[in-house]
Amino acid sequence: MSTLVTGIGELTTNDPELGRLTDAALVLADGRVAWVGSASAAPAADERVDVEGRAVLPGWVDSHTHLVFAGDRTAEFEARMAGEAYAAGGIAVTVEATRAASDDELAANLRRLVAEAAAQGTTTVETKTGYGLTVEDEVRSARIAARVVDEVTFLGAHLVPPGADADEYVAVVIGDMLDAVAPHVRWADVFCERGAFDADQSRAVLAAARAKGLGLRVHGNQLGEGPGVGLAVEFGAASVDHCTYLSDADVDALANSATVATLLPACDLSTRQALPPARRLLDAGATVALASNCNPGSSYTTSMAYCITTAVLQLRFTVEEAITAATLNGAKALRRDDVGHLSPGARADVHVLDAPSTTHLAYRPGVPLTHAVWRAGVRLR
Amino acid sequence: MSTLVTGIGELTTNDPELGRLTDAALVLADGRVAWVGSASAAPAADERVDVEGRAVLPGWVDSHTHLVFAGDRTAEFEARMAGEAYAAGGIAVTVEATRAASDDELAANLRRLVAEAAAQGTTTVETKTGYGLTVEDEVRSARIAARVVDEVTFLGAHLVPPGADADEYVAVVIGDMLDAVAPHVRWADVFCERGAFDADQSRAVLAAARAKGLGLRVHGNQLGEGPGVGLAVEFGAASVDHCTYLSDADVDALANSATVATLLPACDLSTRQALPPARRLLDAGATVALASNCNPGSSYTTSMAYCITTAVLQLRFTVEEAITAATLNGAKALRRDDVGHLSPGARADVHVLDAPSTTHLAYRPGVPLTHAVWRAGVRLR
Ligand SMILES: [Zn+2]
Ligand SMILES: [Zn+2]
Repeated sequence: MSTLVTGIGELTTNDPELGRLTDAALVLADGRVAWVGSASAAPAADERVDVEGRAVLPGWVDSHTHLVFAGDRTAEFEARMAGEAYAAGGIAVTVEATRAASDDELAANLRRLVAEAAAQGTTTVETKTGYGLTVEDEVRSARIAARVVDEVTFLGAHLVPPGADADEYVAVVIGDMLDAVAPHVRWADVFCERGAFDADQSRAVLAAARAKGLGLRVHGNQLGEGPGVGLAVEFGAASVDHCTYLSDADVDALANSATVATLLPACDLSTRQALPPARRLLDAGATVALASNCNPGSSYTTSMAYCITTAVLQLRFTVEEAITAATLNGAKALRRDDVGHLSPGARADVHVLDAPSTTHLAYRPGVPLTHAVWRAGVRLR
Repeated sequence: MSTLVTGIGELTTNDPELGRLTDAALVLADGRVAWVGSASAAPAADERVDVEGRAVLPGWVDSHTHLVFAGDRTAEFEARMAGEAYAAGGIAVTVEATRAASDDELAANLRRLVAEAAAQGTTTVETKTGYGLTVEDEVRSARIAARVVDEVTFLGAHLVPPGADADEYVAVVIGDMLDAVAPHVRWADVFCERGAFDADQSRAVLAAARAKGLGLRVHGNQLGEGPGVGLAVEFGAASVDHCTYLSDADVDALANSATVATLLPACDLSTRQALPPARRLLDAGATVALASNCNPGSSYTTSMAYCITTAVLQLRFTVEEAITAATLNGAKALRRDDVGHLSPGARADVHVLDAPSTTHLAYRPGVPLTHAVWRAGVRLR
């Protein structure tokens, strides 16, 4: 079964040779991109879909979410918007609800959010554990996540469980918990921040995870400057996420490493924090990704379009930089070369916009622009 | 034909006596709200729609748009996002394309945008002329608008046409143009800003329109402090729109008048301007509305949800203040008492969210949340 997508007004391939095409077509076959080129030269296929001049681009790669959770934090959000300060302790509410939920409840909530994201063009999702915080609950979260999403990250080091001693908890994370969770995940992550884990504790988590063969990610520099970025680069982490407060040394380190700086602007706005210094990163030559950080506390959105709109209007990305950040660079943050672009051989993750160009993602803030989505060649919308 | 909408988890009526109800129902009949109350006490109706716990609120009242236009300004937007300064002269591009378009083209573009807005919950739309700028083209724009939207505003005083003398143009606006357009519109507006019309010219436009029996609106204080707000209050205008830069005297004047301060945050962000001092207005007791300012140059969005999200996350509205601003206060800006609320007798403009509460409009930035829409009792989505 092959599908010819034709009538593409503007095709963003993210392929260094193909670039951006007009009057283009794509052939999808066996879940992959089989052919890319001019509409007039397109080969035949079993099925033909004319997108009538619309813009087409790779599906979003959302490289940072926390979707294995239960419970509701609407009231906490309302309180914050009425003027209360951001309380990281709010995570404990989700931990309690997640532990109390059944496997089916957790899986259903996860599937609901992944489907909501797909309906908006997201075709690759990373998600994290981190609302279990016991060996048993972290393993359970990892198992459930692995059944639903592409990439799963162990985040036992999300916060110190209420009442626990931090160093004793880290010993569990890098011992029994890591042993039990590692078979289910590709990545490990640590929340390196005042109020979460300090540099020594973060280093211990990263070293143990690396020894176990896991890829590394870091939450860092969300609430102030700190050691997160430096540690991430030192350990060769695939990404360091948040990057809201950066020293010049942090920017230099990122510009001279393969560690992706992943910005989470929906989180910064939802917590009424400052916005990250994106132009400093971009101008220095760092690889910058955009992700939703979807979670029920600090950023309850699946909308990559909102992240792109915000990046362009408020972080001074160009439109092209923002699109790259939400596709190709999200894939780099996951060390994936099969998604985030539409070269021949790539996974057939195709996003058709109800617009003639990707510029409309910033030009038309808030307007739902997803017209059609294929993931691995299967039409989702 | 009557419709019972039941299973409403949270019903925002904007009725001072009814307030916000839970486990509620509505009956729509003959285009009006016929009954509001507890789901358990609801009367029978011809048709029954169970919204399964969702939140319901009045349709958005978008009290400021410019939808009678032709042409494309995507390239101008891209250039601005690549760092060029905001050029009010960009309006001239739209004027040229609008004059060149046929009636059918203008009507089709207008209907497309009104339908796009309705699919996102907008049930009352004000729109303006102002891309014609000749007697003939302004009359044509007003006629076309009046066939499609609820409220039409004459904005001959949008800018001085390229090459024209400002005072001579104002003489036409308040003379032949006003005479010809007035039968087709309820409102007149003037762009009182450096680069557009100064205080004396604006005063002349407002006085002539008032003498003609039109209600008044003002574009003011978008690019800096200026006389717009003061003039609007002096003339008893229904609203003054933008209000991005306000003196203390402006805030006081608005707080002590019936003139609504209409904020257009999607425009401020799309032009990378400052955001308006919303909390000063709200805390002073001014009546504040939110509108899209949808137009192809400075704010090409129909998304009232984006305006609300931005108002809460960035302008420090509470969620309730933002919802009121986009419904009831939008109606006040249009001096309408039949829309913007769901009291018995109101027009049956009903917006059902795919969420349990209106809080999700800010808690879930960018996620499309419109589940169903009725306008005057007719289901649009
Ligand atoms: Zn996170
Ligand atoms: Zn306007």
